[in-house]
Amino acid sequence: MAIKLSQLAERTGCRMNGSDCLIENVADIHHAEQGQLAFVYNPKYLDAINLSKASAIIIKEEWLSKCNKPALISDNPRLAFAKVASMLNPTVNPHSGVLKTACIADDVTIPDSVSIAENVVICTGVKLGKNVVISAGVVISENVAIENNVYIHPNVSVGKGSKIGHNCNIYSGVVIGADGFGYVRDGDSYLKVPQLGNVTIGSNVDIGANTTIDRGALLDTIIHDGVKLDNQIQVAHNVEIGENTVISACAAIGGSAKIGKNCLIGGAVGIRDNVEITDNVVITGRTFVTSSIKESGSYSSSMLLDRTKNWKKNVIRLKHLDDMAKRLKVLENKVCKSNPGSD
Amino acid sequence: MAIKLSQLAERTGCRMNGSDCLIENVADIHHAEQGQLAFVYNPKYLDAINLSKASAIIIKEEWLSKCNKPALISDNPRLAFAKVASMLNPTVNPHSGVLKTACIADDVTIPDSVSIAENVVICTGVKLGKNVVISAGVVISENVAIENNVYIHPNVSVGKGSKIGHNCNIYSGVVIGADGFGYVRDGDSYLKVPQLGNVTIGSNVDIGANTTIDRGALLDTIIHDGVKLDNQIQVAHNVEIGENTVISACAAIGGSAKIGKNCLIGGAVGIRDNVEITDNVVITGRTFVTSSIKESGSYSSSMLLDRTKNWKKNVIRLKHLDDMAKRLKVLENKVCKSNPGSD
Amino acid sequence: MAIKLSQLAERTGCRMNGSDCLIENVADIHHAEQGQLAFVYNPKYLDAINLSKASAIIIKEEWLSKCNKPALISDNPRLAFAKVASMLNPTVNPHSGVLKTACIADDVTIPDSVSIAENVVICTGVKLGKNVVISAGVVISENVAIENNVYIHPNVSVGKGSKIGHNCNIYSGVVIGADGFGYVRDGDSYLKVPQLGNVTIGSNVDIGANTTIDRGALLDTIIHDGVKLDNQIQVAHNVEIGENTVISACAAIGGSAKIGKNCLIGGAVGIRDNVEITDNVVITGRTFVTSSIKESGSYSSSMLLDRTKNWKKNVIRLKHLDDMAKRLKVLENKVCKSNPGSD
Repeated sequence: MAIKLSQLAERTGCRMNGSDCLIENVADIHHAEQGQLAFVYNPKYLDAINLSKASAIIIKEEWLSKCNKPALISDNPRLAFAKVASMLNPTVNPHSGVLKTACIADDVTIPDSVSIAENVVICTGVKLGKNVVISAGVVISENVAIENNVYIHPNVSVGKGSKIGHNCNIYSGVVIGADGFGYVRDGDSYLKVPQLGNVTIGSNVDIGANTTIDRGALLDTIIHDGVKLDNQIQVAHNVEIGENTVISACAAIGGSAKIGKNCLIGGAVGIRDNVEITDNVVITGRTFVTSSIKESGSYSSSMLLDRTKNWKKNVIRLKHLDDMAKRLKVLENKVCKSNPGSD
Repeated sequence: MAIKLSQLAERTGCRMNGSDCLIENVADIHHAEQGQLAFVYNPKYLDAINLSKASAIIIKEEWLSKCNKPALISDNPRLAFAKVASMLNPTVNPHSGVLKTACIADDVTIPDSVSIAENVVICTGVKLGKNVVISAGVVISENVAIENNVYIHPNVSVGKGSKIGHNCNIYSGVVIGADGFGYVRDGDSYLKVPQLGNVTIGSNVDIGANTTIDRGALLDTIIHDGVKLDNQIQVAHNVEIGENTVISACAAIGGSAKIGKNCLIGGAVGIRDNVEITDNVVITGRTFVTSSIKESGSYSSSMLLDRTKNWKKNVIRLKHLDDMAKRLKVLENKVCKSNPGSD
Repeated sequence: MAIKLSQLAERTGCRMNGSDCLIENVADIHHAEQGQLAFVYNPKYLDAINLSKASAIIIKEEWLSKCNKPALISDNPRLAFAKVASMLNPTVNPHSGVLKTACIADDVTIPDSVSIAENVVICTGVKLGKNVVISAGVVISENVAIENNVYIHPNVSVGKGSKIGHNCNIYSGVVIGADGFGYVRDGDSYLKVPQLGNVTIGSNVDIGANTTIDRGALLDTIIHDGVKLDNQIQVAHNVEIGENTVISACAAIGGSAKIGKNCLIGGAVGIRDNVEITDNVVITGRTFVTSSIKESGSYSSSMLLDRTKNWKKNVIRLKHLDDMAKRLKVLENKVCKSNPGSD
């Protein structure tokens, strides 16, 4: 596929500067070849433009004097680049149809536009929308409902009764709808609490590889429209994640936690069960959310990196910090008493 | 399925209060409909009883005056609820039998009560107990032994020689018996140490989605009876987990760690390799267990959440805490010397 | 298999002490039986030698007086043991050939020495080297290239265009080549950035169960020769991991992080995106690498375990550490002023 720069400008709402040319694909500015389009979002890369073999650059208006090539001018070069990259690399679904090694329950209707790959298992009561792609080795259990344009990658397991909205991408190894982790102590051992809720996933949701989303205990676990989940995230039972919230890899979200809309949650963040987080909250990487967050803003709790030698000296003192604080208070009282006028 | 409230009382050892009625299922008190049974375990939800459409409530004796509905009276409403929920929602195994897409080694005997789903692979030497359910896409390698009433969900991988006791539930994406992570430096690179042990899992063990349990190096990795493991837990080689210990999601347990009985281990806890933890230990969420625990009790090591702005000011000081402690000591000496009588 | 002790000595470059004997396998010193070979790498286990039923011991020269059995003498008993264990327990590949339930694209050539198990899916354009083993349920997408002697365990998913070098072991549930996590805010929601790079894995790389390695955005994610990755590690897009670096379980590596050669990275370590770590760096367990590391050495940032009761008192003070530091400075100034000569 190749598109004229002028057409890309028109389709992305950018202004074109310089002569028109044919763009075959996007590329990193340092590795671009002729026929490729690169972008600069940070002025420190402006010097790379002259050295680049790219045929054109996406750039901000204010940097145009540094650019000796045809350009697309955008206030948000990263966004313009993403749009161009999508145009030049559209998702191509596999041929529609059902491969003969797929096992599909008799009562399931497969729309003509759907693609079902090798060894897929689809159980009774499943509903599939249009243009759904189900890749090899995926198991869709009873009564799952999947809307249009959902792409499920290989070896995903979707538990019974789960609902998946439009335009979702579900990557390999994801497990949706395993039982929530609910037990009650019963004498010497534990009794499992039946997990009777389901998982409800909205539209435009992406779920990264090996992420797990448990079914609810009585009510559903709910992932709202536009949520993006990275790899290896754990979403416990009855969690609710608000619209357009983005969560980076390896986050662990405890049972019944409620996360608001438009939050940005960093990698390996932990969220304690039953915590509530309001809208528009940023949580930096590796933070442990130990209490509810009622005001939007940025929150943290990780430690900073240090040489092990220094870290050892400091971290051991942490176990005596309360003692230090009390001793400091005692000293302040003494010094104030003896130097009343020196403040 | 519907059961009379009086029968549920009898079967759970609760006392019934008020008139009998037919109970179709359990529900959350805020969403219950007629014919459903809800429970209250916390007095803050007592006011919800009047508003609830539930036909009956499980409640403590002391709260009975707040309840205008038929009730089951229990000292432990949560436990009674779990029992009732199990009665009304018994696990229903798929039909027994072997689907024709399953691949089963010639020497394996499949009991009549066993259910083997689509695309299951069972290798030579495998032994299966009664009422075992093996879901679609599961791979059981050579010489695995599985006892009665084990339910294995889709896309699980069980490595050769693993032993699984009675009444276990193994959720999707679990990997049992991958090689432990053992290497020895050999010049510029690393030599793999053959992992010759197996994984031994007791009875009544649950293993959550995408959890991994490695085989031992020379001896076995051992999960004792009644252990409950949540999702995405990592159990390294030669770990031993004692009876009825419960571990929440995303815990990472290092090689040869020994965890006692009846422990409660929170989410995303890390346990350093070779650490020993005695019985009846509670470890709060996100703690890193850096040394052995010889006395039962509760242990922690995480940080508290803060505004990023405040956190930045404080966390940088942590790198100088040892210096602060020394300066505090110097000051104390000075002030004591100059104010010897003021203490 | 059984090998004479003298032959093992010759093949491992150890010196034999005492009489020759036939060794059937290796074992733990406390559990060894006759015909087995154990090792001692720590003098605290020397007393176990007399009690052991092992037929021979691998030991350091300096401890020989404590050993009443035939011995292999090595400066590095652990390495010698690993070598012997490998000789006595060679990896045995399944029979070569393609099982009839495998689904292989018409254009793929399968070398005679390759073993393809049940329900394997191999898509168009895939290249396979010699002695490759692909276990049940594995899905290899379009245009993947796999070199000689690669062993892929059950239920692995390899995304299109991935390259895997010689002698790699890839354990169950691994996902290679899922899309990187790249989005750009576009008004109220997020636009996905197409992930156009691949994953390139060198030779002698091991990848533990349920680990995920994302494809690059424009350029490739690169794992160099000799890297060993434990279970449940997350490797984001455009990460580069240098030769012979070893990473323990549950580490989370952010996008575009560059890790040097010969690093040792502990369990559950987090590495922030875009961070660079030089060669020969040790990072202790549970550390969060918040900034680049330019000098080799050991780095840390975790907290130490404490009783929850003590931890609560101390951790709350952490939120006021900056205030404490300022008050300490004020006190120092006061005391110095009032006791100028006492230092």
